Amino acid sequence: MSAFRHRHLLGIEPLEPSDIETLLDTADGLKEVLDRPIKKVPALRGKTVVNLFYEPSTRTRSSFEIAEKVLSADSLSIATATSSVTKGETLLDTAKNLEAMNPDMFVVRHSASGAPHFLARHCRSAIVNAGDGAHEHPTQALLDALTLRQRKGRLKGLRVAIVGDILHSRVARSNVWLLTKMGAEVVLCGPPTLIPPGIEAVCPVTYRIDEAIEGADAVMMLRIQLERMSGGFFPSLREYFQRFGLDEARVRRAKKDVVILHPGPMNRGVEIASEVADGPYSVILDQVTNGVAVRMAVLYLLLGGSGGTA
Amino acid sequence: MSAFRHRHLLGIEPLEPSDIETLLDTADGLKEVLDRPIKKVPALRGKTVVNLFYEPSTRTRSSFEIAEKVLSADSLSIATATSSVTKGETLLDTAKNLEAMNPDMFVVRHSASGAPHFLARHCRSAIVNAGDGAHEHPTQALLDALTLRQRKGRLKGLRVAIVGDILHSRVARSNVWLLTKMGAEVVLCGPPTLIPPGIEAVCPVTYRIDEAIEGADAVMMLRIQLERMSGGFFPSLREYFQRFGLDEARVRRAKKDVVILHPGPMNRGVEIASEVADGPYSVILDQVTNGVAVRMAVLYLLLGGSGGTA
Amino acid sequence: MSAFRHRHLLGIEPLEPSDIETLLDTADGLKEVLDRPIKKVPALRGKTVVNLFYEPSTRTRSSFEIAEKVLSADSLSIATATSSVTKGETLLDTAKNLEAMNPDMFVVRHSASGAPHFLARHCRSAIVNAGDGAHEHPTQALLDALTLRQRKGRLKGLRVAIVGDILHSRVARSNVWLLTKMGAEVVLCGPPTLIPPGIEAVCPVTYRIDEAIEGADAVMMLRIQLERMSGGFFPSLREYFQRFGLDEARVRRAKKDVVILHPGPMNRGVEIASEVADGPYSVILDQVTNGVAVRMAVLYLLLGGSGGTA
Repeated sequence: MSAFRHRHLLGIEPLEPSDIETLLDTADGLKEVLDRPIKKVPALRGKTVVNLFYEPSTRTRSSFEIAEKVLSADSLSIATATSSVTKGETLLDTAKNLEAMNPDMFVVRHSASGAPHFLARHCRSAIVNAGDGAHEHPTQALLDALTLRQRKGRLKGLRVAIVGDILHSRVARSNVWLLTKMGAEVVLCGPPTLIPPGIEAVCPVTYRIDEAIEGADAVMMLRIQLERMSGGFFPSLREYFQRFGLDEARVRRAKKDVVILHPGPMNRGVEIASEVADGPYSVILDQVTNGVAVRMAVLYLLLGGSGGTA
Repeated sequence: MSAFRHRHLLGIEPLEPSDIETLLDTADGLKEVLDRPIKKVPALRGKTVVNLFYEPSTRTRSSFEIAEKVLSADSLSIATATSSVTKGETLLDTAKNLEAMNPDMFVVRHSASGAPHFLARHCRSAIVNAGDGAHEHPTQALLDALTLRQRKGRLKGLRVAIVGDILHSRVARSNVWLLTKMGAEVVLCGPPTLIPPGIEAVCPVTYRIDEAIEGADAVMMLRIQLERMSGGFFPSLREYFQRFGLDEARVRRAKKDVVILHPGPMNRGVEIASEVADGPYSVILDQVTNGVAVRMAVLYLLLGGSGGTA
Repeated sequence: MSAFRHRHLLGIEPLEPSDIETLLDTADGLKEVLDRPIKKVPALRGKTVVNLFYEPSTRTRSSFEIAEKVLSADSLSIATATSSVTKGETLLDTAKNLEAMNPDMFVVRHSASGAPHFLARHCRSAIVNAGDGAHEHPTQALLDALTLRQRKGRLKGLRVAIVGDILHSRVARSNVWLLTKMGAEVVLCGPPTLIPPGIEAVCPVTYRIDEAIEGADAVMMLRIQLERMSGGFFPSLREYFQRFGLDEARVRRAKKDVVILHPGPMNRGVEIASEVADGPYSVILDQVTNGVAVRMAVLYLLLGGSGGTA
């Protein structure tokens, strides 16, 4: 595997295409460990990883924890509700204090954009961004890319539609960075209230889902956060599904071998019909499996695993 | 040890007497590991167990976690409050997603009867029912049986009184299945409002505790869930104790070598007097120790441990 | 290392100076493990430690968990919110039940003074007090002492000012015991409402921070619990900082090589100015690192580690 020269994984934006390839190649190589009867390699024995989650999360946290255990790292998970955060301590003081316990890495999820970058400037430990506000979610974009590459053999030249709440989505943002860096063609689609102004300068935008899907190699549906509805961003779930939901009829507008992605958790019947979520084009569960492989790769490359993976 | 042909442990009802014997014999054999100075065997190294608890639990969850660690499995615990459940995802989507991370087993507690069976129909992983609604709690019945067998040398022919809220108790239900399958004689006792209608067809029922205890080899007291009182099932805690609580005078009606069981947590002075809970006939703490042994046996038999227990 | 003859660590009060020296020497010896690339020794392999936290805590719990993992113990953490405590079980029943699962040690934090002592009288497992009400917090005093000894080469003869809410502080209480046993000179300082009556019999008290700091080798600032303000113990945060907060001007009254300690989490601008917390005299992050080393020493000495630390 080629060298990875970064100390942190803060986002996709600062990565070169070759970095992304190294990450995906490493994930592809490590993935077979998950199919062994004994899913355990000593690569990160004696390394300590602190999972610092300021937002609730089952899937991302579980995925990191499993990746850490498969690689034999010691992992410590801290969730907001049980932390000193409730005692009014600053993020920096919490991190400095945890860092003084000599962990090798922090995996951080935080509602504030830039929180992991702030920690990276002030801490010696490696920092992995597990989602910061509406900014980036780099391991999600990497697992999406790994899934696409496995199915399509390449990223370059693929036409990928991303549909939903683009404005608030760190998943969309990281995917736009990754896919455009790797030479894919991205089309964004959502209600006008949920499209960030000026984004047309980066990639084409349409408010009509049929147009977005037309001829697509992949469609990535975003989760609608139901609390947005009270914010007046869109009128009703029923109307949302009619205008932007993905059903079988719409899938037929895409290429014959289209793949459907969703970062989860899904709102069935809101942004995606069950027949599509569970249908033949869906790669949603592959994404989850690839998530563990991608996180193993990130841990392995940043912590300079030396214990071997045999 | 003889073979165990089941992929899941969903309840006692589907088991043959020989299955129950295999489980108890395996638990007996593994129990001595808990007395070693180094309580660790490599049997399940590299196996991942997800403890998925949709209801709060200290003792059952801790017991499974300790069993997993003693057998060197990697364990991941997910409790409702911190899970995506709060984001409205279905049980099946949560499980499918976790399953895509390739765990070998789910240990599931859920307030809905049948939740583990539903998962077993849709997931490849082994499923262990750690309590589903008012339905079954098979590892509790197994640890009760292990405790009885250790004290009495057998289950066949024992007279066992089960006293309390039979209606809502998964512990009672699993114990009735197990004890009757193994040839013990069960008597049920509780307030008429807390006895399921028609249960007399399965085993004798009495509303008088003295009658239930008369000549018993074992008395199993159930926990009264205090929230039932507001439901009008019984008038007051004081009256409950007078009519159905177990005190020393009542214990004397049983056989001289009677043993007293309680699944915990106890309400002292409500269903059981402290003098009985802490007295010479109580095997309540043996039950807890046997709980770890039984869970080790379940993990070992379902996951086909190959790493050895020496 | 010399022998440690205690089964439990309930507080500093029952320890001899030689016990304290053994703990500090052991911590000094184990600390280098934390600087190794592979922070893992097999000393406590197969030992089970239950962290039983009835009060929220990030730093103390994380510090114990890391110490347990570095020493290869199996650790199980139980926090109030997810425990059977909510089902009304007594502390003793919870502990007896957990003990029946054969753990080797309980690390206990509880809001009631004396809770760990109560458990020590009734359980076979080793008990470590991780903070009991306003009573003791022995590992905090030990990590403070380790930090002072590393910086000053000794404890005997040091002049140490402890400033803040002495009345409610288990940190202050354990430090007074430890420092006076080891021959240091302690001065207490705080608002009259937050000084326990009669404490002048143990060490000198002043209500003027300038007087307390005058000529000090070390100043230990205590956390103000903001909820005390509503209790009427002091009028406002602003006035508290003016009268008892530590700023640079006040630090200059101490010895030239003074060290500043704080147990965390800090209220910047309330009991301590940021310029002091982050300044050259601050040893606050050394305290945190030493916390892991001290907890490793406690685990190692009480559990009679036999697996080696090489």
